[in-house]
Amino acid sequence: MIEDKNQQRTKLSDLGEFGLIDHLTKNFKLNQPSTLKGIGDDAAVLKFDNKKIVVSTDLLVEGVHFDLSYMPLKHLGYKSVMVNLSDVYAMNAVPTQITVSIAVSNRFPLEALEDLYAGIETAAALYNVDVVGGDTTSSNKGLLISVTAIGEVEHEVYRSGAKVNDLLVVSGDLGGAFMGLQVLEREKEVYKVNPNNQPDLEPYTYIIERQLKPEARKDVIQLLKDLDVKPTSMIDISDGLSSEIIHLCKQSNVGCDLYEDKIPLDPQVISTCEEFNIDSTTIALNGGEDYELLFTISQEDFPKIKANPSLSVIGFMKDASAGMHLVTRGDARIPIKAQGWKNFND
Amino acid sequence: MIEDKNQQRTKLSDLGEFGLIDHLTKNFKLNQPSTLKGIGDDAAVLKFDNKKIVVSTDLLVEGVHFDLSYMPLKHLGYKSVMVNLSDVYAMNAVPTQITVSIAVSNRFPLEALEDLYAGIETAAALYNVDVVGGDTTSSNKGLLISVTAIGEVEHEVYRSGAKVNDLLVVSGDLGGAFMGLQVLEREKEVYKVNPNNQPDLEPYTYIIERQLKPEARKDVIQLLKDLDVKPTSMIDISDGLSSEIIHLCKQSNVGCDLYEDKIPLDPQVISTCEEFNIDSTTIALNGGEDYELLFTISQEDFPKIKANPSLSVIGFMKDASAGMHLVTRGDARIPIKAQGWKNFND
Repeated sequence: MIEDKNQQRTKLSDLGEFGLIDHLTKNFKLNQPSTLKGIGDDAAVLKFDNKKIVVSTDLLVEGVHFDLSYMPLKHLGYKSVMVNLSDVYAMNAVPTQITVSIAVSNRFPLEALEDLYAGIETAAALYNVDVVGGDTTSSNKGLLISVTAIGEVEHEVYRSGAKVNDLLVVSGDLGGAFMGLQVLEREKEVYKVNPNNQPDLEPYTYIIERQLKPEARKDVIQLLKDLDVKPTSMIDISDGLSSEIIHLCKQSNVGCDLYEDKIPLDPQVISTCEEFNIDSTTIALNGGEDYELLFTISQEDFPKIKANPSLSVIGFMKDASAGMHLVTRGDARIPIKAQGWKNFND
Repeated sequence: MIEDKNQQRTKLSDLGEFGLIDHLTKNFKLNQPSTLKGIGDDAAVLKFDNKKIVVSTDLLVEGVHFDLSYMPLKHLGYKSVMVNLSDVYAMNAVPTQITVSIAVSNRFPLEALEDLYAGIETAAALYNVDVVGGDTTSSNKGLLISVTAIGEVEHEVYRSGAKVNDLLVVSGDLGGAFMGLQVLEREKEVYKVNPNNQPDLEPYTYIIERQLKPEARKDVIQLLKDLDVKPTSMIDISDGLSSEIIHLCKQSNVGCDLYEDKIPLDPQVISTCEEFNIDSTTIALNGGEDYELLFTISQEDFPKIKANPSLSVIGFMKDASAGMHLVTRGDARIPIKAQGWKNFND
């Protein structure tokens, strides 16, 4: 009951989000024969009898991960499922079940939670996962959603399998979710000043949808299977391209050249970046929440994917000693640094 | 962005915690062949190849489920694991893995989280489960812990299997965790008035430990196996005996006579109830967090358990039309009503 005021205090922001879970669990032992992979990838891999399953979990916190002033609850429910399914797909697995827990303050009426669960139900039906459990409790402030996803996998793909000379490939396009967020934040400020102003969001429909209603790339996993391409490593892009490239390189012990002119950008991302006077490459590198898949393939698989509009080869894996660099349009080589989400900043 | 002020608003407290998850998920379909049991028991049951696994998840919220002014973080970490393992044991399963996610405000230094994870590590080692995943994020206020537990099961036991004429059995003793909480709350008030007062907690060590460091009844599951007793139904006591009896009876479509004089109480619970001038039966019925196992067995199994000090026969299952009653020491019959935790009260 008596607090020691002289205890050592290290701020969480000194460590950063990525380091924290690793730091806290670094001494944890794995003893179960059914555990193939614990902490450190997009999901854990377990093996029961001859079936391998993956397990991934995420928390979404109001005021940190979402703002209900522009995020409809139905979309939030949908997105909270997508965030987790994306991790399952990033293991080359197929999701089968989820559990959904919420902590919610009394300011939310039942009808708000019905909207949230309608979004969860829509996502579960569309991605063919069963909602098999959960917990509901009150919170002192705001809304928090915790989703755990389970999937089946035949050939799991880890972050650690990239080889020198592999090609770096990304699905879809990048930066949209982040720029959608910028537009929504701007309109929120406008709305505060003049609630009668009707914003024209027509020029931003794609990027706003990327922010409010992302889709996990179920189709890409199916596509890779159909094309008979087995990625050597894979991760989903939740924190931004730079940060995910660093994860792949560090865990695979390789380096990487990323080509700026190959990074796929939607025209709406480019035009909105111009409007906001932000460099679109910076956004693609550091904007999060695109939920695209980033993976490496051996060069012999290149012919199988090169014609595909959903996939872009954006880089080349090198020896670890070469480091990780962005090769700019002007042929400059800039070291890749993680920005990602800095949730623990003061 | 524009809130409809005329929307229908049903307060969450009108529905109660038990009704909420059922209400929100009642239309959800189960489509996966690997899903044997979804929402509605202590854990979901999944089947991969020939192995059945169970999955259970719980949220613990600061200010709702715990108070850090008397709950040391190491104990909290330990307890957050126990709460989930208890659900796994209540399915007659053996836990194998857990994931642990936390949302935490910046007021917590790293050292506080290290304490929390030390408790998690101790629990995981003692109960032989691997910590295989998790998420850490910031919160706007306080600490929230979300744990998901996975276990293996050969013969799962549902809440729904109790039969007329079965015996109702409980492990350990009841009411301790709740009375421990009352003592801690009282000492907190004393401390606020006089921080130099050193409380004498010696008379309350057992009940305080029941509150701060509960143990999931791994030993009881092993004992039942050793005794060759297969419970017909089972649930863990997290919300209070009344509420769990109601779950068993409703899901099994049976009634129940519960005998007041058979309810196991520790002498410390009895003496502390006298000191607080509370009826100990009321506490056993409605105090939560004992994490004992409540189960039914067929009468022919009675000889196997009757000599066991860890198990008490406290009741008898009847036809559903007979209802659920507490049979008092004075032979009065009082209908059993759920109290449980009322987290959504205003």
